[in-house]
Amino acid sequence: MTGSLRTRLIAGTLSGLAVMAGAFGAAPAEAAPAENGRAAQAVVQTGVLSADAALTIADAAMKEAAKQKQRVTVVIVDRSGAARLVLKGDGAGPQTEESARRKAFTAVSFGRTTSELGKGVTGGGPSIADIPGTLFLGGGVPVASEGAPIAGVGVGGAPSGDIDEAIAQAGLKAVAGRLR
Amino acid sequence: MTGSLRTRLIAGTLSGLAVMAGAFGAAPAEAAPAENGRAAQAVVQTGVLSADAALTIADAAMKEAAKQKQRVTVVIVDRSGAARLVLKGDGAGPQTEESARRKAFTAVSFGRTTSELGKGVTGGGPSIADIPGTLFLGGGVPVASEGAPIAGVGVGGAPSGDIDEAIAQAGLKAVAGRLR
Amino acid sequence: MTGSLRTRLIAGTLSGLAVMAGAFGAAPAEAAPAENGRAAQAVVQTGVLSADAALTIADAAMKEAAKQKQRVTVVIVDRSGAARLVLKGDGAGPQTEESARRKAFTAVSFGRTTSELGKGVTGGGPSIADIPGTLFLGGGVPVASEGAPIAGVGVGGAPSGDIDEAIAQAGLKAVAGRLR
Amino acid sequence: MTGSLRTRLIAGTLSGLAVMAGAFGAAPAEAAPAENGRAAQAVVQTGVLSADAALTIADAAMKEAAKQKQRVTVVIVDRSGAARLVLKGDGAGPQTEESARRKAFTAVSFGRTTSELGKGVTGGGPSIADIPGTLFLGGGVPVASEGAPIAGVGVGGAPSGDIDEAIAQAGLKAVAGRLR
Amino acid sequence: MTGSLRTRLIAGTLSGLAVMAGAFGAAPAEAAPAENGRAAQAVVQTGVLSADAALTIADAAMKEAAKQKQRVTVVIVDRSGAARLVLKGDGAGPQTEESARRKAFTAVSFGRTTSELGKGVTGGGPSIADIPGTLFLGGGVPVASEGAPIAGVGVGGAPSGDIDEAIAQAGLKAVAGRLR
Amino acid sequence: MTGSLRTRLIAGTLSGLAVMAGAFGAAPAEAAPAENGRAAQAVVQTGVLSADAALTIADAAMKEAAKQKQRVTVVIVDRSGAARLVLKGDGAGPQTEESARRKAFTAVSFGRTTSELGKGVTGGGPSIADIPGTLFLGGGVPVASEGAPIAGVGVGGAPSGDIDEAIAQAGLKAVAGRLR
Amino acid sequence: MTGSLRTRLIAGTLSGLAVMAGAFGAAPAEAAPAENGRAAQAVVQTGVLSADAALTIADAAMKEAAKQKQRVTVVIVDRSGAARLVLKGDGAGPQTEESARRKAFTAVSFGRTTSELGKGVTGGGPSIADIPGTLFLGGGVPVASEGAPIAGVGVGGAPSGDIDEAIAQAGLKAVAGRLR
Amino acid sequence: MTGSLRTRLIAGTLSGLAVMAGAFGAAPAEAAPAENGRAAQAVVQTGVLSADAALTIADAAMKEAAKQKQRVTVVIVDRSGAARLVLKGDGAGPQTEESARRKAFTAVSFGRTTSELGKGVTGGGPSIADIPGTLFLGGGVPVASEGAPIAGVGVGGAPSGDIDEAIAQAGLKAVAGRLR
Repeated sequence: MTGSLRTRLIAGTLSGLAVMAGAFGAAPAEAAPAENGRAAQAVVQTGVLSADAALTIADAAMKEAAKQKQRVTVVIVDRSGAARLVLKGDGAGPQTEESARRKAFTAVSFGRTTSELGKGVTGGGPSIADIPGTLFLGGGVPVASEGAPIAGVGVGGAPSGDIDEAIAQAGLKAVAGRLR
Repeated sequence: MTGSLRTRLIAGTLSGLAVMAGAFGAAPAEAAPAENGRAAQAVVQTGVLSADAALTIADAAMKEAAKQKQRVTVVIVDRSGAARLVLKGDGAGPQTEESARRKAFTAVSFGRTTSELGKGVTGGGPSIADIPGTLFLGGGVPVASEGAPIAGVGVGGAPSGDIDEAIAQAGLKAVAGRLR
Repeated sequence: MTGSLRTRLIAGTLSGLAVMAGAFGAAPAEAAPAENGRAAQAVVQTGVLSADAALTIADAAMKEAAKQKQRVTVVIVDRSGAARLVLKGDGAGPQTEESARRKAFTAVSFGRTTSELGKGVTGGGPSIADIPGTLFLGGGVPVASEGAPIAGVGVGGAPSGDIDEAIAQAGLKAVAGRLR
Repeated sequence: MTGSLRTRLIAGTLSGLAVMAGAFGAAPAEAAPAENGRAAQAVVQTGVLSADAALTIADAAMKEAAKQKQRVTVVIVDRSGAARLVLKGDGAGPQTEESARRKAFTAVSFGRTTSELGKGVTGGGPSIADIPGTLFLGGGVPVASEGAPIAGVGVGGAPSGDIDEAIAQAGLKAVAGRLR
Repeated sequence: MTGSLRTRLIAGTLSGLAVMAGAFGAAPAEAAPAENGRAAQAVVQTGVLSADAALTIADAAMKEAAKQKQRVTVVIVDRSGAARLVLKGDGAGPQTEESARRKAFTAVSFGRTTSELGKGVTGGGPSIADIPGTLFLGGGVPVASEGAPIAGVGVGGAPSGDIDEAIAQAGLKAVAGRLR
Repeated sequence: MTGSLRTRLIAGTLSGLAVMAGAFGAAPAEAAPAENGRAAQAVVQTGVLSADAALTIADAAMKEAAKQKQRVTVVIVDRSGAARLVLKGDGAGPQTEESARRKAFTAVSFGRTTSELGKGVTGGGPSIADIPGTLFLGGGVPVASEGAPIAGVGVGGAPSGDIDEAIAQAGLKAVAGRLR
Repeated sequence: MTGSLRTRLIAGTLSGLAVMAGAFGAAPAEAAPAENGRAAQAVVQTGVLSADAALTIADAAMKEAAKQKQRVTVVIVDRSGAARLVLKGDGAGPQTEESARRKAFTAVSFGRTTSELGKGVTGGGPSIADIPGTLFLGGGVPVASEGAPIAGVGVGGAPSGDIDEAIAQAGLKAVAGRLR
Repeated sequence: MTGSLRTRLIAGTLSGLAVMAGAFGAAPAEAAPAENGRAAQAVVQTGVLSADAALTIADAAMKEAAKQKQRVTVVIVDRSGAARLVLKGDGAGPQTEESARRKAFTAVSFGRTTSELGKGVTGGGPSIADIPGTLFLGGGVPVASEGAPIAGVGVGGAPSGDIDEAIAQAGLKAVAGRLR
C-alpha cells in the first residue's frame, strides 16, 4: 500500500459511511441539535418502535426462519441501544443471542445493514469493528422512520449471513407499511 | 409485626407507589400500549430531554453546589436508562459518579424523588431496593413531560441526601419553564 | 428471638421450601440422577418451552397489561437460566428488563412464584435472596411440565407485585392447556 | 483480492459452514420450529448430556492428558452455553479455564471441531471469530446426539491445539457408545 | 440493643471468628510471613488439592445427592479463589452453580463451614456478608491440610442448607484419609 | 421507631457525616469549585500520594501484620478510586484483595475510617452501604493532605476489623511525617 | 516482510511513540519518580482539568458539531482514566458514548491524538490496540499542561474520524488559553 | 501462503511453543498429574512467590524505571492468575495497570517472555492472542522455580516494549539468587 493512500485511510477511516450520513441527513427538525442556544425547547420528540411492531417483526422473522428450516435468534434494539425484544428460536445455538444483539446494535448505530458495513472492514488497522458492542456479520438491518434509524433488527444462527439477513428483512417487511 | 400485615406487605410490596402510577396515569395516547392488535401504528413519539437542557441542568446544579460549597457529581439518564450527561465536580469523591447515576436511574424508573421512594424501603424483606441499578438515597429527581418521566437527575457527594436533592432541584428549576 | 429458634433457622434456612421439593419430587425418570454408575444412559431427555409458546405467553401477558393500563416488560428464561424471550412494553421503565429477568430466573430456579418465595425472606441474616441473579418481588411465575420447572415468566413495571404476577399468570394461562 | 471475490466473501462469510448445516439438517422432529402456528406443542424434548457422562468424559480426558504428560483444563458446556463441568488439572495454567470454556462453547455453537472451524477464519475482515465467547484454536469438540449438537468439550493447556483436541477426543470416546 | 454492645460489635465485627484464627493459628512455617526482612526465601511451598482428589470429592458428593434424591451442583475452589472443579448435576437449577461457587469461596476464605459462619451474620449493620463473592447459606465446607484451608467445597440445590452441607461433607469424607 | 424520627433519618440519611464535611471543609483554594464563571483557571493542582509513599505504607503494614501473625492484603487507592498499590500477603485468603480494596475506596470516598463510618450503617433502610464499591468493615483508613483525603489504605484478612485497622494505621504512621 | 524487520518491530512495537516520550520528557519535577529513596516527599502535586473547563470544552464541541450538522457524544476523562464529563448529543447513536470514551482514554494514555496513534497500528501482529479500553479511530485529543497529558477529549458519532477530531479540537481550543 | 502450510499452522497453531513445553517438561514430581488412580496423594506442594520477594521485585523495577526516566506500573500475578502485587508509578498512564497485568498473566501462563511469544502472533487467523486476559507486547517476564513458572512480572508504560521488559528483568534480577 502506498504511503499517501494509507494516510488518507487513517485520516478518514469511516469516510465510506458518508452515504449513510447523507441518507439520514434530512432528519426531522425536532431531533436536530439546538443551534440557537439555551432558550431552545428542552424536550425533543423521538420516534420509537412500538412493542407491538417488535412482536410483529419477530413473528414474521421466525416464520421465515421456519420456512428456510433455520434455527435462529431475533433481537431488536432501540436507538438507545437497549433491548426491545429477544426471541431465541427452538434449537438455536448459545452464541445466537449475543450475535443477533450485536448485529441489531450495529445496524441501528450506523443506519445501514451489517452486510454493507462489513464490506468496509478489512482487518488491516483500526476500524469501526473495534467499537465495543458491534458485529459486522450479515444479519443486522436498521429500521428507519422519517429518515432516521429508530431500531435495529438482528438475526443469528443461520450458516450464512445472507440467510440471517433475509430472515431479518422478512421481519421488517411485516411492518414496512406502518413506518412513516 | 402481625402476620396479616406482613402478608399484605409481601403481596403488595410496591403498593406505596400507587400514587406515582396515578400521577403518570394520564399519559399521552401515543405512548399507550396498542390495544387494537397488529394494525396499530408501528412508531410511537416519545419525549426526550435535549442535550442542551441537560447541559443547562448540570450547569445550574454545579452553580448551586458551589454556592453550598459541596463537591458533587451530576448524572442525567434518559428513560431508557442510558447516560445523557455526567459531570464530575472538582474534588468530588470516586463514589459520586456511580451514586449519582443510580439516583438518576431510580428517579426516572419510578417517577419520583429517591428521598420519597426511600421512605418505603425498610430493609426488612424484599423491596424495590433489590432491583439492580437502583439507589434510594436522597439526591435523585425525575424530569417529567406531559405526565411521564423522561429523564432523571442524580447528584452525589454532599454529606446529606437533603443537600444532594436541593442541588438536583436547582438544576431542574433551570429548565422547568421549558418542559411542556 | 430465642437462641434455639435462631439456630434452627440458620441450620435450615431454606426449610420453608420443602413443599416445593415435594411438589417436584415425582420428577420423570429420565431426568433423575444416575444411580447405577457409569453404564447409565449418557443423554437425558429434558422438556424445553417452545419459542412459539414463549411468544404466545408474551402476547397474552402484554394484552393483560394493556387491559390493566400497565407498562411492563416480560422476560422468559429456560431452566438453564438463559433468556428465551424479552419483550419491553411501550413506556416501560429502564429497570423493568432486569427486574423481570430476575423474577423469571428466581421462579424457574426454585419452582415457585416469587411472591410465595418472598414470604420466607425477612432480611434478618443470610437467605436465598443473597444468591446472585435472584429477586423476590412478586411477578415471577414458574412454568412446569411433568412435575418439573422448565421455564420462568417474569413481569416488571406495575406499581405492585400483585399486578405484575397477575399479568404473568395471564400469559401462562394462554399455554396452560398445551403443557403436559 | 479481486473485487467480486471479496464481495462474495462478505455476503456469505459463513458459507463454509454449510456442510455443518447439512450434517445437522436431519434434526429430530420434536426440536423443529413450529410451522403450524400457535396450536403446536408447548414443550419440546431436548437431549442433554448427563452429569455422569460429563464426569466420564473428564476422567478419560485427564487420563489421556497424563499419558501425554500435559497439564490441561477440561470444560464441558451444554447447548444453552452453561457450564456442565470444569476440571482444572494439576499445574494447568491460569488461562486454561477460559480457553477450554470458549473452545467448548464454540464447538457446541457451530457443531464442528474448533480446528475445522478455525480454518475458515483468516483475520482479514469480519468473521465468526468476532462473536463473543468463541475461540477458534484446536481443542474443542462437539458432542452430538440424534444429529444435533448437545454439548461441547473443550481442552486447553497443551502446547499445540492438536494435542488439546486429541485429549478432548479421548474423553468423548469414553461415552461414544452411550450417545444415541 | 444497648449502645455499648452495639459499639463493641461495630468495633470488632468479626470477633466471632477468633476461634477460626485459633484453629488455623498453628500454620506451617513455610507459609508464614517473612519476618526477617528481604533475605528470606523467595518461594514458599503451598499445599494444593489435586485434580484427582477434586474428582473423587465431586463423585462422592454426587452419589450422596443421588441417594438423597437431590439435584445439586458441586463446586471446588482453591485457596486463590479459582475454580478447581464445577459439576452441575442432572436437573440442577440455574442458580446452583453460582451459589455452590460462593459457598466454596466463603468456606476456603474463612476456614469454616458456611453454616457456622452464617450464625454470625444477622443483617443488622455491616458484616462479612458484604464482602464480594461470599454466601453464608449452608453447603460450604473447607478442606484443610496441615492446619490451613487449601480448598473449599460448595454444594447448592437442595431445599435446605443442611442437606447441601451433608452432601459436601460426604464428598470431603472420600478424601479425608489422604489429606495430611 | 417513631414516625418523625424515621422521617428525619430518611431525609438526612448521611447527616452523621457532617463532622467529616467539617473536617475537610477548609479545603485548599485550588481545589474549590470555580465560582467566578468560565474565566477561571482550567487546571487545578491536586495532591497525589507518591508511589514511593505507597510502597513505604505497604511495607510497614506488612511488618505489623507479621508481628501480629496475621495474613492480610493491603490495597491503596487514590482519590479517583484507581488502585495505587495492591500487595497480597503470604497465605492471605482469596477474599482479601476485594475487601481491602473496598475498605480503601470507602475511606478515601468519605474521608473517615471505615470503622467510624460503619457505626452509622444499621441495615434498616437505605444507607451509604448501598453505594457500589463500598465496604464498611474496619480496616480502611483515609490519607489526608492539606485537609482533603488524597488516598485510602485498606487491609483485609485479620479475624477482626480492629486488627485490620491497626495494621493499616501502622502503615500510615510510616509516612505521617511526610504528609503536609 | 523480512525477518530482521519483523524482529525489530516485535522488539520495539511502540518505538513509533518515542516522539511522544520526548514531547513529555521535560515533565515537571514534582511528578518525577522519587530517585532518592524513601525520604522523598509523600505527596506530589498533579494538574487536573477543572470541571468548569470540562463544561466549556463540551459546550464548544457541541456548538461545532451543530455547525457541522453532526450528532455526536463528547467524553472527557482525566489522567486516572475516570470520566470527567459525558455529554450525549441529540440523536447520537448508542455506540457513541463508548467510542468517545475510548478515544479520550487512548489520547490521555499515550499523550497524542488517536488519529496519529492509529497510523502505527496495522493489524499485523500484537500492537497497542490490544490494550483494553483503547480505540484508535480519529476523534481523541489529549489535553496537556506543563508538558504532561492531564485529560483526554473524545468525540464519536460523525461519519469520519476527521470530523470527530475537528469537533474535539474545537472544544479544546475554547480552553487553550487557560492551560498553562 | 500455500494450502498445506496454512493447514499445518491451523492444526498446530501453538507448535512454536514446544520449546517452552520442553523447558518446563522436567517439572517436579509432586506437581505431576496423578497417574496411578484415586489412591494418589490428595495434596500437591506448589511453589509460590513470597510477598516479600514480590515487594523486592517491584522496588527494584521501580528503581530501574526511575533510572530510565520511565513512568510505569508493575504487576505481579501468581500461577493461579491472581494479583500478587500492583504498583502504579508516579505519572503512569491509566492504561498501564491493565497492560502490565495482562503481560504478567501471559508470561506466567505460557512460561516465556511476552516479547518472545509475540513473535509467533501474526494477526492472520486464530492465535493464542485470542485467549482472554493475554497481551503479547514486550514487558512480561515469567518467574520460574524448579523448572515451572510460578509467577509473572509485567511492566507497562514505557514507549517501547523493550524498555518495559528491561525494567521487568531488573526487578526479577533482584530475587534471582533466591529462587531455587
